[in-house]
Amino acid sequence: MSELLNKLEWRYACKKMDPAKVVPQDKVLRIVEAARLAPTSSGLQPFEVWVVTQPEVREKIKAKAWGQAQITEGSHLLVFAAWDHYTAERINEMFDLTNTERGGSNEGWENYRQSLLSKYPARSPEENFQHAARQAYIALGAALISAAYEAVDATPMEGFDPAAVDEILGLRARGLRSVVIVPLGYRASEGDWLANLKKVRRPSAQFVTEVK
Amino acid sequence: MSELLNKLEWRYACKKMDPAKVVPQDKVLRIVEAARLAPTSSGLQPFEVWVVTQPEVREKIKAKAWGQAQITEGSHLLVFAAWDHYTAERINEMFDLTNTERGGSNEGWENYRQSLLSKYPARSPEENFQHAARQAYIALGAALISAAYEAVDATPMEGFDPAAVDEILGLRARGLRSVVIVPLGYRASEGDWLANLKKVRRPSAQFVTEVK
Repeated sequence: MSELLNKLEWRYACKKMDPAKVVPQDKVLRIVEAARLAPTSSGLQPFEVWVVTQPEVREKIKAKAWGQAQITEGSHLLVFAAWDHYTAERINEMFDLTNTERGGSNEGWENYRQSLLSKYPARSPEENFQHAARQAYIALGAALISAAYEAVDATPMEGFDPAAVDEILGLRARGLRSVVIVPLGYRASEGDWLANLKKVRRPSAQFVTEVK
Repeated sequence: MSELLNKLEWRYACKKMDPAKVVPQDKVLRIVEAARLAPTSSGLQPFEVWVVTQPEVREKIKAKAWGQAQITEGSHLLVFAAWDHYTAERINEMFDLTNTERGGSNEGWENYRQSLLSKYPARSPEENFQHAARQAYIALGAALISAAYEAVDATPMEGFDPAAVDEILGLRARGLRSVVIVPLGYRASEGDWLANLKKVRRPSAQFVTEVK
């Protein structure tokens, strides 16, 4: 078993975090960095990560998330916020950044830009948002694995009112919509009903199909 | 920088694979295993991974994917196929498996089952499919990282005709819909326009917002 698989076995959706323990800043940075480095469709990175530590803001979010305690028991709350739409401006910004970083462009790359410009902004905002949200989930996977590497507990949550969280953080005004939130912290020594239960996954025979 | 971040820096969306090189089976297994171990909403794992090696089948898929050469230059093609719907049967199957594996159940867990049963099957298939597809993308992130750990190149692709791929593999009859495909292989020594270009990501200042 690889080290990566060991980390995936170690992690679980911690249900009770120790409010006395704070995740060090360098670990938080490496967790978010994994999300930043994750691959995305056409490299557009159509999302942002918000790192909320402010206690009152986290209390407000918890109230819109079924009162899930880890949101305030943890020391940090990551909010993955996807673009509400692919606009020409956003696409051009990423292609321009790429050209600047690589010190030039070429015809194939510029043709690719034009094909995205002709396709994405014409789609509905909802279709584009759904596409952007999927990309954010790739980064979510990377961040969760990175947290496990840092021996930090991380509990991904979809159980919250996205419109309310958008309102609390002012996301819509920034062209963003919350898609998933992740408290970071350390598991409490006791009181977590899930901590000692076996991790269950469908057997490989039901998960994988070979076509050979 | 952590080892994980190093692996994320190493990987890239390889554009030209060496058709003479075959990814060993134990590496493929560990790549798929990372997808299987990835966390998903309510632990439902609403997707499967198909591993296609059959050359003719990969040729057919390539023809429906803009002829992207890695699909046949690589040795394996992963197809992430999400559930087309959350049905009561599928939800019950996962809760029953969990009870079997954990040797029992409890009231909270059974209440949670009931809340999913009352909520998910009543939603539209399309809404459920979109939700399932997001979960598949968490596993996609895990598989891509696992590939990097195995020093295997992996190129995630959304640029294909999902309905055609569903037809080629017979996915719809299994209640599945293809969402992303990933050729696995080894980068060719030359001929890849992307291989020597800098990896570009938005700077942290534009990607991360702190609320403190």
